[in-house]
Amino acid sequence: MARARWTGPPLLAGLFVVLTVLDAISGAPVTRPDCQDGPSAPPNRVDTSERLQRLREVMADSRYNIDAYIVPMDDEHQSEYVSPHDARIGFISGFSGSAGLAIVTKDKAALWTDGRYFLQAEQEMDCNWELMRNGTEPKPPSEVQWLTSELSRGSSVGADPRLLAAKDWLYIDSQLRAEGMQMKLAYENLIDLIWTEGRPPLSDEPIVVHNLTYAGKTWESKVEEARDYMREEKVEVLLVSALDEVAWLFNLRGNDIPHTPVFKAYAVIDSDSVHLWVDPDKLTDEVRQHLRAPGCQIGDMCVTLHFYQEVLHNFGTYIRQKWKGKILLPDESTFIDSVSFSFYNQVPASRLVFVESPIVRMKGRKNEVEIAGMKAANKRDSVALCEFLAFMEEEIHAGKEWDEISAAEKLKEFRAEQTLFRGISFETISAFGSNGAVIHYAPSNATKLPIDTSSTYLLDSGGQYLDGTTDVTRTMHYGQPTEFQKEAYTRVLMGVIDLATTVVNRKITDTQLEIVAREPLFRAGLSYRHGSGHGIGSYLGIHEGPINISFRNKLPHVFELGQFLSHEPGFYKDGSFGIRLENIVLVKNAETKHNFDGPYMTFEPVTLVPFERDLIEPDLMTVDQVQWLNEYHQLVEQEMGAVLRQGNRQRALRWLTARIAPIKPANMTPSA
Amino acid sequence: MARARWTGPPLLAGLFVVLTVLDAISGAPVTRPDCQDGPSAPPNRVDTSERLQRLREVMADSRYNIDAYIVPMDDEHQSEYVSPHDARIGFISGFSGSAGLAIVTKDKAALWTDGRYFLQAEQEMDCNWELMRNGTEPKPPSEVQWLTSELSRGSSVGADPRLLAAKDWLYIDSQLRAEGMQMKLAYENLIDLIWTEGRPPLSDEPIVVHNLTYAGKTWESKVEEARDYMREEKVEVLLVSALDEVAWLFNLRGNDIPHTPVFKAYAVIDSDSVHLWVDPDKLTDEVRQHLRAPGCQIGDMCVTLHFYQEVLHNFGTYIRQKWKGKILLPDESTFIDSVSFSFYNQVPASRLVFVESPIVRMKGRKNEVEIAGMKAANKRDSVALCEFLAFMEEEIHAGKEWDEISAAEKLKEFRAEQTLFRGISFETISAFGSNGAVIHYAPSNATKLPIDTSSTYLLDSGGQYLDGTTDVTRTMHYGQPTEFQKEAYTRVLMGVIDLATTVVNRKITDTQLEIVAREPLFRAGLSYRHGSGHGIGSYLGIHEGPINISFRNKLPHVFELGQFLSHEPGFYKDGSFGIRLENIVLVKNAETKHNFDGPYMTFEPVTLVPFERDLIEPDLMTVDQVQWLNEYHQLVEQEMGAVLRQGNRQRALRWLTARIAPIKPANMTPSA
Repeated sequence: MARARWTGPPLLAGLFVVLTVLDAISGAPVTRPDCQDGPSAPPNRVDTSERLQRLREVMADSRYNIDAYIVPMDDEHQSEYVSPHDARIGFISGFSGSAGLAIVTKDKAALWTDGRYFLQAEQEMDCNWELMRNGTEPKPPSEVQWLTSELSRGSSVGADPRLLAAKDWLYIDSQLRAEGMQMKLAYENLIDLIWTEGRPPLSDEPIVVHNLTYAGKTWESKVEEARDYMREEKVEVLLVSALDEVAWLFNLRGNDIPHTPVFKAYAVIDSDSVHLWVDPDKLTDEVRQHLRAPGCQIGDMCVTLHFYQEVLHNFGTYIRQKWKGKILLPDESTFIDSVSFSFYNQVPASRLVFVESPIVRMKGRKNEVEIAGMKAANKRDSVALCEFLAFMEEEIHAGKEWDEISAAEKLKEFRAEQTLFRGISFETISAFGSNGAVIHYAPSNATKLPIDTSSTYLLDSGGQYLDGTTDVTRTMHYGQPTEFQKEAYTRVLMGVIDLATTVVNRKITDTQLEIVAREPLFRAGLSYRHGSGHGIGSYLGIHEGPINISFRNKLPHVFELGQFLSHEPGFYKDGSFGIRLENIVLVKNAETKHNFDGPYMTFEPVTLVPFERDLIEPDLMTVDQVQWLNEYHQLVEQEMGAVLRQGNRQRALRWLTARIAPIKPANMTPSA
Repeated sequence: MARARWTGPPLLAGLFVVLTVLDAISGAPVTRPDCQDGPSAPPNRVDTSERLQRLREVMADSRYNIDAYIVPMDDEHQSEYVSPHDARIGFISGFSGSAGLAIVTKDKAALWTDGRYFLQAEQEMDCNWELMRNGTEPKPPSEVQWLTSELSRGSSVGADPRLLAAKDWLYIDSQLRAEGMQMKLAYENLIDLIWTEGRPPLSDEPIVVHNLTYAGKTWESKVEEARDYMREEKVEVLLVSALDEVAWLFNLRGNDIPHTPVFKAYAVIDSDSVHLWVDPDKLTDEVRQHLRAPGCQIGDMCVTLHFYQEVLHNFGTYIRQKWKGKILLPDESTFIDSVSFSFYNQVPASRLVFVESPIVRMKGRKNEVEIAGMKAANKRDSVALCEFLAFMEEEIHAGKEWDEISAAEKLKEFRAEQTLFRGISFETISAFGSNGAVIHYAPSNATKLPIDTSSTYLLDSGGQYLDGTTDVTRTMHYGQPTEFQKEAYTRVLMGVIDLATTVVNRKITDTQLEIVAREPLFRAGLSYRHGSGHGIGSYLGIHEGPINISFRNKLPHVFELGQFLSHEPGFYKDGSFGIRLENIVLVKNAETKHNFDGPYMTFEPVTLVPFERDLIEPDLMTVDQVQWLNEYHQLVEQEMGAVLRQGNRQRALRWLTARIAPIKPANMTPSA
């Protein structure tokens, strides 16, 4: 699944660039001049008048007394995706998108989001809300610019320090102070106070042990690895606040966030103890035993369990009474904001080490068992996708009626037939024709198109399996593609191939691969508005650090053996069609003739789904690219063919065979 | 000319990475256990005992009373290269290299430098000095680690705030404070107090007007452009502290720094006046008229002249009395440190805008006149190099004796025949055989090798011309190259070609082109330890921001039309041979079939010197690469051939003709 630009919270996106132009905006423009509520409004619009009124009453209450309240999209763990229970922006504004930030003052309410969500926000938010369109020209005021223009000197801006990332808090506070205003800690979440009806409950799904057969490494040895790092960096305490890091560290999985098998918890490792703050109702006896929690004593390799809600209190107590040395709080990392201000605020500056969590890179390097699992999961997932694609082609050519939603549901059925399947890994992007040009499109009843022979069908989907997570995109055309569609498809495919064959050393960073992915498109004056690849977890997050091949990546990382990531260039013609191709690949050693200043690494695709030969123009490709494609299709034939033959899946076998015959380049040339 | 790694001051190189490991070092190791002064010491060793004693006496003087003194390599303008007058590290330590930092305590003295200079520093520095080898394992202590291990709580560390970059000062100070120590301002430079004999004088070369015929744009319109930026960014005052920025801004040139036509001066632009601090003895009447200095009044477009020495005093006075708004001080930029602490220290935090100087990008985008001049200068320079290479080949094949130094002198003679020549643009890297593997090698009588048929001859050189600056590298072999040398040469050439044909958009940054330059080498397990290209000035600096294609570039910049930069991959086999190929190229519009999310840009080589066909293995190259090479050689034939024929330069013509015949690839394939 591609990450579109502007996916970070707008605050962070603007953090460094607005510094010198902050006082350039004197007042907010009217952002929705034609907004009209009432009978003619879209059916999915939410009436927020009463909610806003109640929030403003709370804001004015003498216990809080704040002039503006910030509602971030984050949960307490600064997760990329949050549970429905934590969709506070959705409640207060009606906006159900997954990126944004809301601020409510005594008389105004504004939401900042990016281009993916403008239409949706316009529909869902009533006219109480201004819409700040990040990334458009003229630029909307930043959150801080808006706050300082709306409020007078002496004003206080409240926010829940558990939800707002420390970096954002510090930045906003410093800017407000320059204007005689300030941030105010509001430990009681004001949305929680008024969101009393119809709120989705907190998940009560149990936590389960992630078997060593899949994890490959005991949690005890992971704790030891973290302690090695801590000793080296002279850190006494490591706070683990990201949910996938907690799950990975303890070899546990849960079900608190849609499509991501994590559970809400914090962990701390110090020199002689390990702590886990979690809802005790989610803990089975098996999990407690796994953690050696019963009878756990300081000094033993065991986990001391605490109530989730007491983490801040306990953390503060430990800082004062137990810990003497430096405390590592996780700074911003790939796909995740820095730790919340509620922790940052408790650590004395002299004892604070504010850097990327070391767990990010430890988790990124999959061990041998995880590598085998990821390969197996992606292979089974490829079988499911091949079967679905064979089925779909037959159906469409037979004139059967399918639309984006029914197709996505059918695809899920094929995945569910695979062993170890635990659900899809993100909402399927099933996008026909013009919908394919909407990068993060997810079909709804209002938008879904029938799938027919008239345009391209872009399908970006993935599964969660006990042994691995998958993410794959293919683009089909069931009729006669245009020359331009073929050129675009071929150049996107050339990007996939060039990425796969790239050899990197230990200094090339993820971001630097953007040029490799895009060059075949650039040369024809084409590009796309999303990144070119992201790390992926092992039965964990679909977007996992540290790898993020993206222009907007401000935290470049080098490649390391054992990492899995996606390669996913695309091309989108607004209002017309979309093309994206995505493989998951493994970072492995490159076999080179010489080895000066090595080692060198390259990428091995573990997604095994053929490309569409009717959309390929071999004349555009180099001989090396055609050769790679033929070898990839041979591999697909070998791996998929064996499984499909064993299962006697004749339809899928026919479909596969039609795709894997070698493509002949016009001429031959030696390779570079 | 390539920039090797570690060229930044070591302080900055370590600035961000050492943050969390500062207290890991408890004491400095003995860095030169076998050091022996006396008769058996190298002849170029400098006895620093008396100098150090005098410095320590000054340090202990009650007026200063400091426990350690930092001597940076920078001058007052944080220049990449400094004048001999400013070579303070050379005086106090004996070390004459161009990158390093020295610290003297009451009983120790230490110099930090990088791998290029280890041997030289060992030879030149006597045993009073410890050598801290940056970039080696185990890591030497950083400057701050060493200071805090050598000094006790309550100690003061002195430095000249005019020489130490603000960022370095702030960083050291914050780290020292954590250990109960502090930085102390020493406005009188302590080295200057004791360096009374044999010090090279300040340059007294006059400043000259850089004619509009070459500059292409009046200084008045440049000031207006800067003011446009200042208005947009709400900045009242812009300090221009970099020497090439001052020279560019006023269309003036000088001769204060070797090989770089700049002069020591500071400038300030505010809303109604322009100021220049400069040695008045260097100003001719013509320059004063050019600047409209006589009778200059506030509000007019004219320059108010001040004594160079009074800049800090005047700046402080203006801050208190004239300026009310924000003041932009230049933060670190490509090839230059941030402004010195002496300015930073005077600006109230609320009024400080600490960002890259806007002049960097303005200067980087050459105007039409500068573009034409750069092309013409590089063409004439290519003629000189072709003539030299033809001469040299004839001489060596005739068995004549040449060495690295005599060859470099001969090359300079050919350059001097060209019109508008003003000198070489950097010390010529004339490196035969194993010397070619020393990346920043400059021949000396002690190291020079004869040039013969036994290995490669790497020649990296350039000229300063009134209409432009040049920088070109070619590698020759006058005998029979090995297969490995041919492979390496060909892959380096493939890097040059791939860089030249790359199409970029407005988001691709300089750093991201590293992978393009290196991929042909990476695929064979080869690489090189320097950047792949740098911006270049128009009759200004050989390394000019903003462009720097380098892994170590922490300040990536996008490409802009009109920029000139080098493309210069290489390969070096230690102790054996070196290969580097370098063209200067212009960033120009790319003509693409489509134009989605454009514009797209590509690179036009303006260096016109053929490559060595005997070192090329066409079988390694793609058909597109061979085609580019043949077209480039056709262009060289056309441009160089015409000039050489006109001058009846038969030898060079024969040499040229032998090189430009089309190379035939084994087969043909369509292009990507």
